[in-house]
Amino acid sequence: MERRGLKVVTIGGGSSYTPELIEGFIKRYDTFPIKELWLVDIEEGKEKLNTVGGLAKRMVEKAKIPMDIHLSLDRKAALKDADFVTTQFRVGQLSARAIDEEIPLKYGVIGQETNGPGGMFKALRTIPVMLTIVKEMEVLCPNAWLINFTNPAGMVVEAVFRHTNWKRIIGVCNVPIGMERAVAKALEVEEERVRIDFGGLNHMVFGLAIYLDGEDITLKAINRIVSSKSEINMRNINNIAFEADFIRALKMLPCPYHRYYYKQKEMLESELVDYKEKGIRAKVVQTLEKDLFDLYKNKNIDEKPKQLEQRGGAYYSDVACNLMESIFNDRGDIQTVNTLNNGTIASLSRESVIEASCVITKEGPRPIAIGDLPVVVRGLVQQIKSFERMTIEAAVTGDYHTALLAMTINPLVPSDTIAKQILDDMLTAHKLFLPQFK
Amino acid sequence: MERRGLKVVTIGGGSSYTPELIEGFIKRYDTFPIKELWLVDIEEGKEKLNTVGGLAKRMVEKAKIPMDIHLSLDRKAALKDADFVTTQFRVGQLSARAIDEEIPLKYGVIGQETNGPGGMFKALRTIPVMLTIVKEMEVLCPNAWLINFTNPAGMVVEAVFRHTNWKRIIGVCNVPIGMERAVAKALEVEEERVRIDFGGLNHMVFGLAIYLDGEDITLKAINRIVSSKSEINMRNINNIAFEADFIRALKMLPCPYHRYYYKQKEMLESELVDYKEKGIRAKVVQTLEKDLFDLYKNKNIDEKPKQLEQRGGAYYSDVACNLMESIFNDRGDIQTVNTLNNGTIASLSRESVIEASCVITKEGPRPIAIGDLPVVVRGLVQQIKSFERMTIEAAVTGDYHTALLAMTINPLVPSDTIAKQILDDMLTAHKLFLPQFK
Amino acid sequence: MERRGLKVVTIGGGSSYTPELIEGFIKRYDTFPIKELWLVDIEEGKEKLNTVGGLAKRMVEKAKIPMDIHLSLDRKAALKDADFVTTQFRVGQLSARAIDEEIPLKYGVIGQETNGPGGMFKALRTIPVMLTIVKEMEVLCPNAWLINFTNPAGMVVEAVFRHTNWKRIIGVCNVPIGMERAVAKALEVEEERVRIDFGGLNHMVFGLAIYLDGEDITLKAINRIVSSKSEINMRNINNIAFEADFIRALKMLPCPYHRYYYKQKEMLESELVDYKEKGIRAKVVQTLEKDLFDLYKNKNIDEKPKQLEQRGGAYYSDVACNLMESIFNDRGDIQTVNTLNNGTIASLSRESVIEASCVITKEGPRPIAIGDLPVVVRGLVQQIKSFERMTIEAAVTGDYHTALLAMTINPLVPSDTIAKQILDDMLTAHKLFLPQFK
Amino acid sequence: MERRGLKVVTIGGGSSYTPELIEGFIKRYDTFPIKELWLVDIEEGKEKLNTVGGLAKRMVEKAKIPMDIHLSLDRKAALKDADFVTTQFRVGQLSARAIDEEIPLKYGVIGQETNGPGGMFKALRTIPVMLTIVKEMEVLCPNAWLINFTNPAGMVVEAVFRHTNWKRIIGVCNVPIGMERAVAKALEVEEERVRIDFGGLNHMVFGLAIYLDGEDITLKAINRIVSSKSEINMRNINNIAFEADFIRALKMLPCPYHRYYYKQKEMLESELVDYKEKGIRAKVVQTLEKDLFDLYKNKNIDEKPKQLEQRGGAYYSDVACNLMESIFNDRGDIQTVNTLNNGTIASLSRESVIEASCVITKEGPRPIAIGDLPVVVRGLVQQIKSFERMTIEAAVTGDYHTALLAMTINPLVPSDTIAKQILDDMLTAHKLFLPQFK
Repeated sequence: MERRGLKVVTIGGGSSYTPELIEGFIKRYDTFPIKELWLVDIEEGKEKLNTVGGLAKRMVEKAKIPMDIHLSLDRKAALKDADFVTTQFRVGQLSARAIDEEIPLKYGVIGQETNGPGGMFKALRTIPVMLTIVKEMEVLCPNAWLINFTNPAGMVVEAVFRHTNWKRIIGVCNVPIGMERAVAKALEVEEERVRIDFGGLNHMVFGLAIYLDGEDITLKAINRIVSSKSEINMRNINNIAFEADFIRALKMLPCPYHRYYYKQKEMLESELVDYKEKGIRAKVVQTLEKDLFDLYKNKNIDEKPKQLEQRGGAYYSDVACNLMESIFNDRGDIQTVNTLNNGTIASLSRESVIEASCVITKEGPRPIAIGDLPVVVRGLVQQIKSFERMTIEAAVTGDYHTALLAMTINPLVPSDTIAKQILDDMLTAHKLFLPQFK
Repeated sequence: MERRGLKVVTIGGGSSYTPELIEGFIKRYDTFPIKELWLVDIEEGKEKLNTVGGLAKRMVEKAKIPMDIHLSLDRKAALKDADFVTTQFRVGQLSARAIDEEIPLKYGVIGQETNGPGGMFKALRTIPVMLTIVKEMEVLCPNAWLINFTNPAGMVVEAVFRHTNWKRIIGVCNVPIGMERAVAKALEVEEERVRIDFGGLNHMVFGLAIYLDGEDITLKAINRIVSSKSEINMRNINNIAFEADFIRALKMLPCPYHRYYYKQKEMLESELVDYKEKGIRAKVVQTLEKDLFDLYKNKNIDEKPKQLEQRGGAYYSDVACNLMESIFNDRGDIQTVNTLNNGTIASLSRESVIEASCVITKEGPRPIAIGDLPVVVRGLVQQIKSFERMTIEAAVTGDYHTALLAMTINPLVPSDTIAKQILDDMLTAHKLFLPQFK
Repeated sequence: MERRGLKVVTIGGGSSYTPELIEGFIKRYDTFPIKELWLVDIEEGKEKLNTVGGLAKRMVEKAKIPMDIHLSLDRKAALKDADFVTTQFRVGQLSARAIDEEIPLKYGVIGQETNGPGGMFKALRTIPVMLTIVKEMEVLCPNAWLINFTNPAGMVVEAVFRHTNWKRIIGVCNVPIGMERAVAKALEVEEERVRIDFGGLNHMVFGLAIYLDGEDITLKAINRIVSSKSEINMRNINNIAFEADFIRALKMLPCPYHRYYYKQKEMLESELVDYKEKGIRAKVVQTLEKDLFDLYKNKNIDEKPKQLEQRGGAYYSDVACNLMESIFNDRGDIQTVNTLNNGTIASLSRESVIEASCVITKEGPRPIAIGDLPVVVRGLVQQIKSFERMTIEAAVTGDYHTALLAMTINPLVPSDTIAKQILDDMLTAHKLFLPQFK
Repeated sequence: MERRGLKVVTIGGGSSYTPELIEGFIKRYDTFPIKELWLVDIEEGKEKLNTVGGLAKRMVEKAKIPMDIHLSLDRKAALKDADFVTTQFRVGQLSARAIDEEIPLKYGVIGQETNGPGGMFKALRTIPVMLTIVKEMEVLCPNAWLINFTNPAGMVVEAVFRHTNWKRIIGVCNVPIGMERAVAKALEVEEERVRIDFGGLNHMVFGLAIYLDGEDITLKAINRIVSSKSEINMRNINNIAFEADFIRALKMLPCPYHRYYYKQKEMLESELVDYKEKGIRAKVVQTLEKDLFDLYKNKNIDEKPKQLEQRGGAYYSDVACNLMESIFNDRGDIQTVNTLNNGTIASLSRESVIEASCVITKEGPRPIAIGDLPVVVRGLVQQIKSFERMTIEAAVTGDYHTALLAMTINPLVPSDTIAKQILDDMLTAHKLFLPQFK
């Protein structure tokens, strides 16, 4: 693919995260020499695109590398002959996310933007758009790799596997790398000495085994983390600690999002308090974003502003850039991504998408055999997978009953009656972005 | 086995349910001619045993059949050369059940005597006793069939499969037959014209397909039931209706116990109200029982008193007697029992115990292939199975951490912290009956 | 379906076996009251159809039952509103079968009309015709049951499951019932006291457990059969005895066709001798058939001639009629048929067709859980299934390479070179009946 | 483990292959610095041990590295605190192999020293010894890795997994690396540019996908290999070419040993001719060995003699040394070894041992997800696995019936009668080395 120079396309290029990505590309230019980088957005995002695009150009110029940055509202023109396409768009923008969080909370339910009712609606809005993009790629760049950042990353990727013939899609998430680095910090060792075997689903992934310099230190590490009350956490999730005895009994590392299930009561209470005090997080983010764009507009700024790190997407750039770089260079290293199960986790169907440690080569990611998840977590994982399957089906068919099933079986939703109320309210509120529901 | 005359042993013979069973045996004497019926109990249950045994003898006498009734506190003597052993004992009596319900409620959690925290502790108390009984049977009556009524029936049976070499055990439950009869009533047809394919776990079983005169009328029946607001319910569960749209979307029939999951919020609220108003159900049952035993003592009564039917065990006698009669006569008919999965439900391990429609022959029950449960319910079922597996392991090992895992992953328990509190309180309260926990 | 009177259609009605079927229908008229029986054939079979049809009418008349027999060359007219359709046609007649046997033998390979190279070509000729029939049924009689006698019965049924949406098809075979009756004879007990659990594939089925009066006597029975050298065999397979120690070690009952694998050398030698002495069996059968049709023409004959029994299809009529009768009356009894695996045998894919003991109700057959076949036979069964899968795919696509794979992996074929030679010769010889191969 | 210096133990150290291994260790001294190398053998092998040991010492001396070579007949002393143990012993020496080949040939059956009747007896002799070694290691060096060269490598490793609690065992074979290098040669590119995904069983492994510089060129490569009649072969197997159309149809690369199944007739004929002309291969090897040992004795020789390469074990040293080096250094690279299936190949049981591409870290090998083998080969692979399972069970139990099952189901054995004859003859001939058979 390198002959004519690498072409990378970023859909949702006007996102506030883009400078992260640009920084990552610049850092890796030697081994991943992008010739053309296309930042694509829709009409409504034009202004942001221009703002972010301006900063991107200044960053590249400062780095003195020959990478051409194109800003475009014409997705098809951008996709033509692309080598890598990254997706980080947000259907309905942050105001849709506000609805995703607010309506459930009104009914005393956590919205949760990936595996909860909020995530469900994000999937319903996103999946049809993603399927359209894939259809365009089949024609315009059939050999490209599609690296999906858009959440809920697992469901979006599974929808593409189940409803198109496209195989070259990978979902990425910064949770696993974040856990690895937090463990290194808790153990007070260099990041590169720690490796974790991951298995599960997006935002429902477990650190199954922890290695230091290649040796399995899982139990020791868990004891250390639990005793030191180290912060194994993401900036955007309330840092409520798990019971030490519970984690010791589990003998695995839950991810920060597991708090929504294993500490559901405390998380809900905390969200309700926060909501009363500060409003929903989406609104906080909106303010943050506004500030960021004000910075981006500043012509004197020609590097990624420090403030971006508070936005919650730490390591996203590293995760995505490392992945593309490894594919491009056929590295054969191990990274944790969302891909087809294919027997890796026995109790999930072969056609499901999982998040797991994979070997990355030019042919993409292939998961390392896990066998099965420990019995103790198999139920929760299967329940989220059932919810994901129903959500994907509802996104594609626009069937009300299927959507009601998805909402009711979500472990955050405490009854079919409340499920129906939230569903009905959200279908109305998001009507504009859900043409498939008639 | 029939040569020397059938010998049946009922462990927990002093139960208030026993007259049900006696009535069932009397009705089937022609095809299931019991020569010796041994009612066995422990020292603490002696008085009840004598009371119930007296009534049993009067019933048999009235029926003019040559069935010898033996009352005994010597379990080993009773088991010797038995053909069928039924177990309906209750470790810790009704007062233990009161604790099972009360402590969780104190923490705002439903106790639920089979699949909830209450059921977990019932399993912890019961499983070691059952394993002891099976060990005795291996020596005293190796060819007998063990028909287990004791709840949680699924876990008790799985414990025997996983921790002994005994294969001739079957768990019975009156939920499936109750659903079949309720459907017949809703459809206004004779009971024998309705047949349902069942699959799932004990108290977590689904009616996967409904037949009228052999024809699949599932969707029609569900619509009828939902529209008519027919009472598909058990007397001992709050009759809170599912959302009609939810059941239509499900395209299966949930069992009454599914309310604890699909209507968790409403069930909890209702239990809390009831608790305040009437105290816990175990106490109501205690009163009911006292009244029943007063009746049983009446020498003029020589048949099953009508009042027994309010006790909640409707059809239990039919279920158990039909099962034994079919085994004895190699009927080859279809009954719904708890037995080894063996591939019947693909997403559950082969060694798990499931509740499913089985063909019953002299060799016991064998399930009819289901393939897999519909995706929509696979998660919840797997979650209960994970909980059951952890509970069984905790019951056998007495390991605190394993018990904590079981309690935390139970879908009725909203956080690891609350799980730990309930667990600690219940371990203390039930200490006497949990010698395996040190 | 009974309202307007039962309509049964037999495709390939001009077969010499038809009087068997007629006799079966007459015997069961009370519980399976056929009003219209349509015998259908193609133009080339017109004379045979009229001959057999004449006998059929005399048989019905003699029995004094009001069953109308229609003879027709118009398949669509016949299928209209049918309740049951049975298929017993033979594409290419007996002369095609002669080729199926002769070409492989020329290369020192057993032809074997079901699971060998011969059976492969029978499948290639038959499957496209069967798929056409099913397409007609989808329009003309969507609620009918299709009972397939045509060999290779397993592959034909799997082709319908894999390449149409039709679910109401069942493959029947007389091997299991023949084994059951032979075991009864060997044990010197009445047939109805013996029951066998069957599992495997068509003509590759094992008697997994043998019951006498419902009690498992497998090992005892095997010892008895092996010691007494009882003839567990079909009339149309050379009766070469298995090694007694091998069957004892197996602890299961192989079917007569297993000789082709476990006694391959002896079977091949015997076929080669027979071939030199008597010519191929297809020719013997042709003579037999001619004699039968001469008998059928005799107007004085009004019942099934005894000579038909030498034809090899013993019990076929019983098998098919019992099956239809059980479906019609929702019997719930156990019969051994070819149907979807659906998890019954774990190491075969869920979508495969197996031959297994099934419960038969108005909704058709459902297999009883087996778990998995014993390891010792899992390989051979999987190998035949791989061969079947390749054959079905070749039959549908007409792809030469796929056909070569099927032929090469067949366990009777000793090398890829010989496979290619047999394949090429047979494709030429059968050209007329294989329009899908260009 | 490196603190006190690496200790490696080679059991069967007197083998003629040992100089290969020594050369490998010398080449890798920088990254795999062995401090002590123990060559261990039994009393009967003392002379050979001393001869080979002498050469080994001269080689190390010449290389000027501080590696101590110990020669010992005391296995326990050698195993104490070992870091790596390699096994390359041969129970019964080459004369046993001669019997393994000769007796089957007498009955017109290929002996085949790994997956055939010969390999079966090699397993029966080897497995009990290996289980003893593992029991010693559990005590003497519980953290060591056991790298098994001894054939049949797959069965030996599976026996250890099934019949001990030892997990740190890996089976190695030179077939996969040989195929990779042969493909590189056929494509006329450097070896390191070619990578193959392997899956299957030992000596029954398939090249599932072929990559050049990371790009999948499977079909292109197969066409090239087939057209150019490149020699994808091992020196010790008759080079009889597969049918070009068959390999094209297969769309995978069979291994050289597949000739025994896909070209069984030709291989048998060729072996019979060879046998008449040259006697059995074991005898040829005996002569070769004698010549090698004569060379080894020559004090002037201080490097691996070129003649060793004709011995058939090309790359064995590379395979084993690369594996140990990768474990020691936690490389995370991909190598093809024999290890637990664990869901990698869905149609084989999770507890089976497979040969597959694995990621190698300090924690050992973990296979990369395959999903399942293509249907077309699933049968043959399962059949060899069934044979392996029966053989392992027979090796451990010494049960005659189980051994008869293993022999009869082997695809090289054409009937149960011949199986019994070969089995009986071989049990007698090998009596001395089969104490478990009484």
